[in-house]
Formats: sequence, structure tokens, C-alpha cells
Amino acid sequence: MIFVGERINTGFKDIKQAVLDKDPKPLQEWAKKQTAAGANYLDINLGAVSSKAEDMCWMIETVQAAVETPICIDSNKPKILAEAIKVCRKKVLINSTTAADEKLDQLLPLAAEHHAAIIGVVMDETGTPKDANKRVENAGKILAKAMELGIPSEDIFLDPIAMPLKFMQEQQKEILEATRQFLLFSDPPPHIICGLSNVSNGTTHKKLINRIFLVMAIGCGMNAAICDVMDIDLINAARTADLIMNKEIYADSYI
Amino acid sequence: MIFVGERINTGFKDIKQAVLDKDPKPLQEWAKKQTAAGANYLDINLGAVSSKAEDMCWMIETVQAAVETPICIDSNKPKILAEAIKVCRKKVLINSTTAADEKLDQLLPLAAEHHAAIIGVVMDETGTPKDANKRVENAGKILAKAMELGIPSEDIFLDPIAMPLKFMQEQQKEILEATRQFLLFSDPPPHIICGLSNVSNGTTHKKLINRIFLVMAIGCGMNAAICDVMDIDLINAARTADLIMNKEIYADSYI
Repeated sequence: MIFVGERINTGFKDIKQAVLDKDPKPLQEWAKKQTAAGANYLDINLGAVSSKAEDMCWMIETVQAAVETPICIDSNKPKILAEAIKVCRKKVLINSTTAADEKLDQLLPLAAEHHAAIIGVVMDETGTPKDANKRVENAGKILAKAMELGIPSEDIFLDPIAMPLKFMQEQQKEILEATRQFLLFSDPPPHIICGLSNVSNGTTHKKLINRIFLVMAIGCGMNAAICDVMDIDLINAARTADLIMNKEIYADSYI
Repeated sequence: MIFVGERINTGFKDIKQAVLDKDPKPLQEWAKKQTAAGANYLDINLGAVSSKAEDMCWMIETVQAAVETPICIDSNKPKILAEAIKVCRKKVLINSTTAADEKLDQLLPLAAEHHAAIIGVVMDETGTPKDANKRVENAGKILAKAMELGIPSEDIFLDPIAMPLKFMQEQQKEILEATRQFLLFSDPPPHIICGLSNVSNGTTHKKLINRIFLVMAIGCGMNAAICDVMDIDLINAARTADLIMNKEIYADSYI
């Protein structure tokens, strides 16, 4: 599993305040804690706090002053992504493009130029698909355009778009089915990722629901998640699922 | 999910002693506890303690004096099954036939005669399959013979044979893939069940491994398990998986 730590996001009050105050401490603490917990990437999200690329760059440089963990730049603004990628020292994960032509035309060349990995969220100009087929169609479009630009499938992280169980219960099977089909696109297959916390939005048993969804998704081929890496039960569940998928060698001390 | 409580089995010391002493109390206590925990069936296993059908019948009658929960008669001896089924008051689940002709010819007519449900373990004269394909072939044989006798698919519980993760790690994906394919046999599909505790045999994190395997199997279509129904984390995980599969309606208070 590839774990992307979700916590350095101005959606959390402490991070929002730290960015407003240009106080490095909260960012660096979360960078260290998530790295110690096993994060493979740290998601950095400026959110609506600022629209300035320099603020995103400050966040990234602040984190990089504390840890060596690769950065996942999380922004829906191509200009911010383009500036932020320049200050990253390690392999970058761009979060994200969609299957919309405008996004693909801006972001895939950026990924190719910087040899970055990129998350492809399988929505398009018409919105978020309601079924597996449209998710697969959009995924195929992203993957085909990436390959045209010479981006290897290992640098593509397809995101089937996790939806809230509470409000879109009938879509969960579609999301899992799409995940299963993404695996068949190429050999080696693309990575498959999701923003896990969406699943439990509005529920009373968030950690349980996130954990069970992730395990089921791993069974369908998902191998990455943007998630709460401090949730040890989640990490242990994912590691166990990886054992069952024969992706790690069993040892009595595996967790 | 259909939960079959595994605990009334002479493999457990207290049950073995109770059967030897003809002491009803331990059996009835476990019958009540497992029923309160939500067991849909109670597995009753005489094991090697005795080869007398009357001892199995005593176990069943003892349990039925305490609870109304249907019985899953667990024996590899057709003669014991044939006697025991007569004392059961509710719908019976026979545990089990295999795909071996001798077993099928003895046990499917018994199931048909008593309108019992029956577990079909997908091994045959040559042993336990090592891959998904042979599991599916054996499952097809069991299902076809059952249908010839007029046993409806809803009364067949196919068992893909859960194997120990620690010793047969590479088989886990085969078992999950077989499960997925069993779903395609008929409409309505057969039930799919396993003896869950096998998965964690010899491991140091038994409950975690059982739980994660079951969740992944539910994602592939499994809808029943012979398991430790007292393990509340297991039950909650299975219920959450059922929500994701859209088999139960979400409510905040679902567990």
C-alpha cells in the first residue's frame, strides 16, 4: 500500500491558522508524525485560505525542512500546481487531474515534464459518474492521454471517486467494480487510489466505515489511499489485506 | 450475512467434557450466548468424541431445549447426519457434502427429502483444489446435481475452502476469485460460506486476519460464515461490509 497522509490541509483548523500566521510548527509536527506512522507521501492542501502559489510553496518548503517524505501537491488550480512542483525535491504526486480535456491538456504535460506521478480523478465535464462504466471510460481516457505523452502507467494513480456511504449507498458497488476494471487497463497496471475519508462523511462510525471500505477496495485492486495515516487500525487492516492479496510476505510480526 | 456459530464443537474442551458427562449446561449456555449475539444457525459438531448418532442427537436436543435457533449439523459421517436431521425442529443446514460422487449421492437426496439446506465444500476425490478454476468446477458439479434433485439454489451454501494464510498465502486470491465466480452460477445465486477460523490458523493476529478476510470475501459475494459470533469486531466489520454491498439500508445506528 501507498499511504498519502491527509493531515496537512487547511480544512483542519490548526493548519489553517498556521498558514495564516506563517507558523511552521504545526505543519512540521504533522509532517513528522505522519512520516513516523508510515506515510509514503504527504498531501499538502492550501484550500481556500489563499490563492497564491507562494503560500503553497511555503507550505511545501516548510514540510521539506522537517522530513524527506515525498509531497503530494493537492490543488485544483493548475497555476499553483505548476509553481509548487518546482520547489519539490523528491518524486511528486500531483493531486489531481480529471478526465476533462482542459485539465488533461494542462496537467499531463506538467507531469510529463517533471517526471511526476499524477492522480486522475475519473470525473469529466459532465460531473461525477454514477456507475462503473462511465468511471472506466473516463479512466481509459486519462490513461490513454498520459501514455501518448510518455507517462508510464506506474505514474498514474486512478481515483474511482469514493462517495459517502450514507448518501450514496447504491454507488459503493459501482466504485468497487470500477476499481476492479481499472486493474485490467495495462501491465503493469496503474495505481488505484481514493480520498478515503469521503466514504464515511456524515456517519457515526467513521473509522470503521473507512477501514472496511478500504479493505474491500484493496480486494478489488486498490493500492493507495489518501487517508488518516495516524489511524493504526486502518493501517493494520490495510496491511492484513495486502497479505491476503499476497503483496507482502507473511510474518507473525507483520504489524 | 448469515452467521453460523462455531462454538458447540467438541474441539473445545468444555464442550467435549460436557458431551462425555452428558451435562447439558455448557451446550445450552453457548447456545444462548451465540443466539443473543445474532447467530442464524448453531453448528453442532460431535467430532471424534463419539461415532454414535445418538450422541449427536443428544447434543441437538439439548440445544433445542434452550433456544429456537436453527441447527447446522456438522459431521463427515452420512449415517450420523441422516439420524441427526430427524431430531431437528427447524430448517436444517447440513455441514457438509463435497463434490465427490459418493458424498453427493448420499447427502443430496437426504437434503432434498428433508428440505434442508446443505453446505457444498468444493473438494473432491482428488483433494482440495489449489486454484480458482478447480474450485469453480467442483462447485458447478455440486450445484448441478442439487438442481437435478430439485434443491433450490438458495438451499446450497458453496464453500470455497478457506485455507491458512500463514501456510498457503498464495491461495487466498484464488479463494476470493472462486467466490466471485460462484455468484454467477444461478439467479438467485447460491449462498457462499466458509469456515472462517481456518484462515488465521497458526497466526498471532487471529481475529484481525479472520475479520479482514471475511470483509474481502463479502466484497466478492460471500454471504455466510461459520465463525466466532461472539467476536463483536467481526460482526461489526461484516455488517459494515454488507452496507457497502448495499445489502442493508444504512442507519447511523447500524451497529
